[in-house]
Amino acid sequence: MILNLKNEAFCSFTFYSVLLLIKMFAVAILTGQVRLRKQAFANPEDALRHGGLKFCRTDLNVERCRRAHRNDMECIYPFLFLGVVYCLLDPSPSIARIHFRTFFLARMVHTVAYLFALKAPTRSLAYTVGQIPCFSMALKILINVAAYW
Amino acid sequence: MILNLKNEAFCSFTFYSVLLLIKMFAVAILTGQVRLRKQAFANPEDALRHGGLKFCRTDLNVERCRRAHRNDMECIYPFLFLGVVYCLLDPSPSIARIHFRTFFLARMVHTVAYLFALKAPTRSLAYTVGQIPCFSMALKILINVAAYW
Amino acid sequence: MILNLKNEAFCSFTFYSVLLLIKMFAVAILTGQVRLRKQAFANPEDALRHGGLKFCRTDLNVERCRRAHRNDMECIYPFLFLGVVYCLLDPSPSIARIHFRTFFLARMVHTVAYLFALKAPTRSLAYTVGQIPCFSMALKILINVAAYW
Repeated sequence: MILNLKNEAFCSFTFYSVLLLIKMFAVAILTGQVRLRKQAFANPEDALRHGGLKFCRTDLNVERCRRAHRNDMECIYPFLFLGVVYCLLDPSPSIARIHFRTFFLARMVHTVAYLFALKAPTRSLAYTVGQIPCFSMALKILINVAAYW
Repeated sequence: MILNLKNEAFCSFTFYSVLLLIKMFAVAILTGQVRLRKQAFANPEDALRHGGLKFCRTDLNVERCRRAHRNDMECIYPFLFLGVVYCLLDPSPSIARIHFRTFFLARMVHTVAYLFALKAPTRSLAYTVGQIPCFSMALKILINVAAYW
Repeated sequence: MILNLKNEAFCSFTFYSVLLLIKMFAVAILTGQVRLRKQAFANPEDALRHGGLKFCRTDLNVERCRRAHRNDMECIYPFLFLGVVYCLLDPSPSIARIHFRTFFLARMVHTVAYLFALKAPTRSLAYTVGQIPCFSMALKILINVAAYW
């Protein structure tokens, strides 16, 4: 099995992965917008340009965006790697797609729950659901390459 | 040379990579457990569910877990990329395995040293040892593709 | 199209990607040096080794390095994934190279602007320029795999 765009599971994986990366870029853009709106900058040089040094400060809404972004880095980047290797194992396209869609939906819910501060445990639940396909792919990979330790 | 699960170096790389990602997931789970045990939440909505808004606070043990996790993101993610490209260079499987095992062991020691606050410079030493195979792979790759700048 | 080191776009991508990862490693090393020079450590065990517990503190220069590093993780890691998949789409090598070089130069300027606190909006501009090739690759990928949702 090789990686190319004739591999159906890989195409599906690529589709959801790229959507999630665009979602992450959107959170980054949002963080910048909230910094401007709330006048809360991380760097004195930015604060100077937007009203003065006193605006070099933290803001609860900015920190919330940054936590959402960091959690994405903790979860989505590993998914990108696990998904590529998982596709090399020639999984059933339909089972593979269940993994990718579950992860994708869970991470979308996670971001919405984070940014809108939805009632707990919505966000933690979305996080946990998103980790299930990751663990599943990790285990399937380990079983296949365990002889190469 | 292509990437598939007949490439011995790639299988070995995959094995250690997935173990390290599972280790990262374990640090994330631990962070959540420490948050619950120490009642120190990053979000008001979580604090409200677990005792009240006053538990929306930072905690030294939680911060330690988060630093360990962040350092993993700074080191393990680059390894995932460098390892894949390195395997495309058809390295000797035994030399490749030395790279992967060194990195794997160094990062395991790093995490233990971080979480148990072992005496300095245990953690920094583990960090440095882990970076050696990364630099070695990076240089080998650069030498092979330097003509394509 | 498959990934190997005969694929010209992929070789060019690999070259710039590895240079950017080495740049990130350099920022990490710099952070450690600034911690030592400013005596500002994140962990009590490090502070104890370098003068005493009172040096377990934050420092503006250290925080600046850490923000530069975090921004790299937010931008360069997605580029590594997008670039690999983009190369599988058999792009024109010259157009591909424009993407990689733009991203590479923008991220080098971004790091310099961050570390030397250059006048705003140098850094934000470099950030924005760097995101353009990422969005371009993301869109090209999405168009090619949109049927696999």
